[in-house]
Amino acid sequence: MKKWKRSSRLVQMTWEFIQHPHRLFSLGFFSERYQAAKSSVSEDLAIIHDVFQNEGWGKLETVPGAAGGVRYIPGMNRLATQHLIHHLCQQLADPGRILPGGYLYLSDLLGDTTIVRKMGHTLASVFSNDGVDAVVTVETKGIPLAYATASHLGVPVAIVRRDSRITEGSVVTINTVSGSSKRLGSLSLSRRSLKEGARALIIDDFMKAGGTIRGMVDLLHEFRAEVVGVGVMADALVEDRLVQHYISLTTVTEVDAEKRKIQVVPGNILDRGGFQNG
Amino acid sequence: MKKWKRSSRLVQMTWEFIQHPHRLFSLGFFSERYQAAKSSVSEDLAIIHDVFQNEGWGKLETVPGAAGGVRYIPGMNRLATQHLIHHLCQQLADPGRILPGGYLYLSDLLGDTTIVRKMGHTLASVFSNDGVDAVVTVETKGIPLAYATASHLGVPVAIVRRDSRITEGSVVTINTVSGSSKRLGSLSLSRRSLKEGARALIIDDFMKAGGTIRGMVDLLHEFRAEVVGVGVMADALVEDRLVQHYISLTTVTEVDAEKRKIQVVPGNILDRGGFQNG
Repeated sequence: MKKWKRSSRLVQMTWEFIQHPHRLFSLGFFSERYQAAKSSVSEDLAIIHDVFQNEGWGKLETVPGAAGGVRYIPGMNRLATQHLIHHLCQQLADPGRILPGGYLYLSDLLGDTTIVRKMGHTLASVFSNDGVDAVVTVETKGIPLAYATASHLGVPVAIVRRDSRITEGSVVTINTVSGSSKRLGSLSLSRRSLKEGARALIIDDFMKAGGTIRGMVDLLHEFRAEVVGVGVMADALVEDRLVQHYISLTTVTEVDAEKRKIQVVPGNILDRGGFQNG
Repeated sequence: MKKWKRSSRLVQMTWEFIQHPHRLFSLGFFSERYQAAKSSVSEDLAIIHDVFQNEGWGKLETVPGAAGGVRYIPGMNRLATQHLIHHLCQQLADPGRILPGGYLYLSDLLGDTTIVRKMGHTLASVFSNDGVDAVVTVETKGIPLAYATASHLGVPVAIVRRDSRITEGSVVTINTVSGSSKRLGSLSLSRRSLKEGARALIIDDFMKAGGTIRGMVDLLHEFRAEVVGVGVMADALVEDRLVQHYISLTTVTEVDAEKRKIQVVPGNILDRGGFQNG
């Protein structure tokens, strides 16, 4: 087996960490793979860690002990987060988004894989210490953001359906009332898609009164799952919110269809601490 | 501005390429960013290219000229593809997937972000020379794979809805007949979500007779879009297929609910050439 140079090792390791956030790699794994001394691997890891930290991408975390190793924990520093949020606010405030009924067209943003990946990276950073086992979302528009978040947390996604489908097997269904429009509906989740007692993170694109997310919380209780957090791309200012604790990237404070004006401000994500230094 | 060492540059550049497949970076961009000579940057690029090629991840492609630069084209070599397909076949053949009516439970595979990313990388490799402008899928289960593919092609995703939603604005709708069950349905796509004349790649999780994909092709004709390809995770053996040209990762040849047996073989992806060497 050929011996790897440091330069090649750095490229290879960077790839592995990016592709597998939160996965623990033992030093022995890298050392054997590259036919390199563990001390050399440790130096490689220090270089990667420094670049990740300086760029505000997260960190390499060392887990000591025989079963230990190193893993990449995606993080986001305050500056990079502010930059993303500012960009999102600008994009969302485009009056061309206003649809009949005061709804907003969001599919272009949610179809942009680069922005979605960054939003997912940011939300994953917020919840990276919460021991998330699975990300849960509801069809359809929240799915991309849920995947991006889950992929940065290294966990699977479970998709709640608005009507139960034959291809989901046995499901748990609850009936819901939409908080804003008082519309009746139902939410179903396949029994197999979530382990009992799982620590679940709920991700969605947009929250008004929060009726759908409230419904997801109730549905997850049926799985004895613990909801460790809720994250959304945008929330709207409403009086009677059904969900109290959540993280939003942006807040839509006003949609005036007549004046063709949308006002969007940074969400509560910037109010919290816990940002990576740098 | 500080000068970057080669080791740090390699980590930083590897990150940029992975996060932005198909995006063109000028040598000047890197040279300025790292305060390094273009000759040094060229050496960095050669190192990254070699690792990417040797690992079967794709290549760095150089575009000559004043507006030129370098971009990462995700590729997959035959060995890595075979490995992924073999793994998929094994997973799909688990008789526990059989649902009433001979349907297969797939949500666990489609919820696994690592497998989905690899499938998307593979499908993107197949279509990387086809000038794809957008990936189009239909809700719900195909969405993750569509995003993973689009993200490796550096293009956006447009999601066809089974019923038109108010949050999509003005839509184009067509009526469909499912090829296998003769069920009536409709497919809608927001006018804004796809530019006229776009080169579209259709991605879905599962194809039986292909009625849904046939419907998407018809819908895309309404956008004067050109369908440059169709890719699915799995197809089933049927007699009258409505779609002739497509790429499948796997083929389900038999589902015997009574004997609790599923037979899955590699799809037609392995029949084609064009794999990266190495």
